[in-house]
Amino acid sequence: MFEVQKRDKDTNARAGLLKTSHGDIPTPIFMPVGTAGTVKGILQRDLVEEIDAKIILGNTYHLYLRPGIDILQEAGGLHSFMSWDRPILTDSGGYQVFSLSGNRKLKEEGAVFKSHIDGSKHIFTPENVVDIQRIIGSDIMMAFDECAPFPCDYEYAKKSVTLTHLWLDRAIKRFETTDPNWGNEQFLFPIVQGGIFDDLRKMSAEKVAEAGMEGNAIGGLSVGEPAEEMYRTVEIVNNILPEDKPRYLMGVGTPANILEAIERGVDMFDCVMPTRNGRNGMLFTSEGIINIKNRQWINDFSAIDLKTPSSVSVRYSKAYLRHLIISGEILGSQISSIHNLAFYMKLLRDARRAIEEGNFKTWKETTIKKVSARL
Amino acid sequence: MFEVQKRDKDTNARAGLLKTSHGDIPTPIFMPVGTAGTVKGILQRDLVEEIDAKIILGNTYHLYLRPGIDILQEAGGLHSFMSWDRPILTDSGGYQVFSLSGNRKLKEEGAVFKSHIDGSKHIFTPENVVDIQRIIGSDIMMAFDECAPFPCDYEYAKKSVTLTHLWLDRAIKRFETTDPNWGNEQFLFPIVQGGIFDDLRKMSAEKVAEAGMEGNAIGGLSVGEPAEEMYRTVEIVNNILPEDKPRYLMGVGTPANILEAIERGVDMFDCVMPTRNGRNGMLFTSEGIINIKNRQWINDFSAIDLKTPSSVSVRYSKAYLRHLIISGEILGSQISSIHNLAFYMKLLRDARRAIEEGNFKTWKETTIKKVSARL
Repeated sequence: MFEVQKRDKDTNARAGLLKTSHGDIPTPIFMPVGTAGTVKGILQRDLVEEIDAKIILGNTYHLYLRPGIDILQEAGGLHSFMSWDRPILTDSGGYQVFSLSGNRKLKEEGAVFKSHIDGSKHIFTPENVVDIQRIIGSDIMMAFDECAPFPCDYEYAKKSVTLTHLWLDRAIKRFETTDPNWGNEQFLFPIVQGGIFDDLRKMSAEKVAEAGMEGNAIGGLSVGEPAEEMYRTVEIVNNILPEDKPRYLMGVGTPANILEAIERGVDMFDCVMPTRNGRNGMLFTSEGIINIKNRQWINDFSAIDLKTPSSVSVRYSKAYLRHLIISGEILGSQISSIHNLAFYMKLLRDARRAIEEGNFKTWKETTIKKVSARL
Repeated sequence: MFEVQKRDKDTNARAGLLKTSHGDIPTPIFMPVGTAGTVKGILQRDLVEEIDAKIILGNTYHLYLRPGIDILQEAGGLHSFMSWDRPILTDSGGYQVFSLSGNRKLKEEGAVFKSHIDGSKHIFTPENVVDIQRIIGSDIMMAFDECAPFPCDYEYAKKSVTLTHLWLDRAIKRFETTDPNWGNEQFLFPIVQGGIFDDLRKMSAEKVAEAGMEGNAIGGLSVGEPAEEMYRTVEIVNNILPEDKPRYLMGVGTPANILEAIERGVDMFDCVMPTRNGRNGMLFTSEGIINIKNRQWINDFSAIDLKTPSSVSVRYSKAYLRHLIISGEILGSQISSIHNLAFYMKLLRDARRAIEEGNFKTWKETTIKKVSARL
């Protein structure tokens, strides 16, 4: 399902193609986050026409709680429910169980947790998380993992990674003995954990590599550790993860984080930053980062960003967008979200082109400087 | 600027054409409310492509406070600021000064009020409200009025309508001695007030008719009085307002209210209901009114409304929209707002067609029954 089409000669960056039943995905790729069956503030039509999202994320934890599995089953899966016919990847809920829900209890069987919505009690196991994702019908399912907090001590991280590995075996077993519900092929990606401890990361990467799944993920990063620790960990892990499978760095990150990770051989990314920070007035542009709430934009009637190929980036001025965000108008969130995602998508298309053209390293260095500047 | 194209033989309904520098407006027409320079939750592109709004509203009170007149002046007016090249009507701020701001004080000179945003003190006079709307550049400006509360006693209503008439003379004087800022022709509509007191309404309608402006408005209705009082008042006023000028019933209303008013000779409408109630899950459909939060829609995978010509009405299911609204997702507000406005626009296009075809009365009776049903 994955083909490396071009390798950069100077770095570990590569351009690839990931094939799914719902369409092909050129890599490196950024995947907009659509937690509860919606990329917040954006019509599905605009995900295609304005952003050209090739694949979006859903979240097992959120979808399981609301609308719930019965509804998704009746709807014929998430694609049908939300009217989206391009690929979907679902996170396993591991991260959310530990970050959102109250009173969680970890057992070898799974994680018992309380809904952050109504306090009701539930259990996620490696097996039922596969079952739920079968019903959701995501093209790429994630194995249930424990995402250890940062910072955490070595002993905790070791216990956590050991549990995640036990769970992985059970998830794979369930995956291999069940079939897709809705006709589309589904892949299961295991997740490398291990905090920022090199030996645990190595051990985990070896375990994951050995599993022989169609793609692999790196979890537990971008949770508060310094960027340099993240990059080092990615290098260690990617030395072990197979070359011929896509590598997905979960929850990362800023434009700079993403380009550094591409250089180190990562192919897939997701992050709430372009939408969440966008709603709060943080804009990524070809000239650098803008806090649109700052007074300097109050009478700047130039376009948000002429170099970002979405109609809103070109149509609306910084002054108008500032007015909308300052006034708490929904339209401000919509414009910022579309713009930021269109910016991210273009950034990764440009990265791919640089790899294809053999000048990734130079392009990356110039680009990081430019897009990381604070305007 | 206004031409009556067809009169219904059985009622006072008429089909007309209102010509402005930013485009022609077929009447009867519904005008989506874009208080602060945005129709909440809807991209300007979708106001055109999904809803086909022929004219939208802005609000002088809100725009004056935020982004402020200096910014609108620098931007070249509201059309340019918000990237909207179809007509705009601005409410004068009379209603908002009395409903939103704190500590307002009425003087003959004008209304002193405190900003609902930061408590700062301001004054609106008939003159400066014209000046502000000159800077905004709206195609249709409204004269500054006092909108009396409901209920209010006869003495208060009489004093209020007298003050509104004094203000009207001053507004017209200012209007006639100033020019548009941005090249487009601007009209000034006076507003009939007088509560639900027939003699005051008559007096006010006569005053307004006498002023000889290009169009006239009826204010101070749909503020809590029974619908029958509203209809009776509209009849009284429309008997006096000139036949050859457009009549605008401010802030009205439900689909039934609008059709009843069209029957009584009203041409223009605005109301926050389709957007505000939409955001809260109230949907107007060709089959009746839906509260999408009700459990009955949880697994209804049929389209929101196949007969409303917007892509969201047809694309998304009731179950999906329910999920979005229940989950507090922005996309729920977006879809509901687009759908409801597209429904209102179609309703008024259908009303116009019925007038043209000479069967308004029958059409109206069937339609009110259908669209007012609670599903």
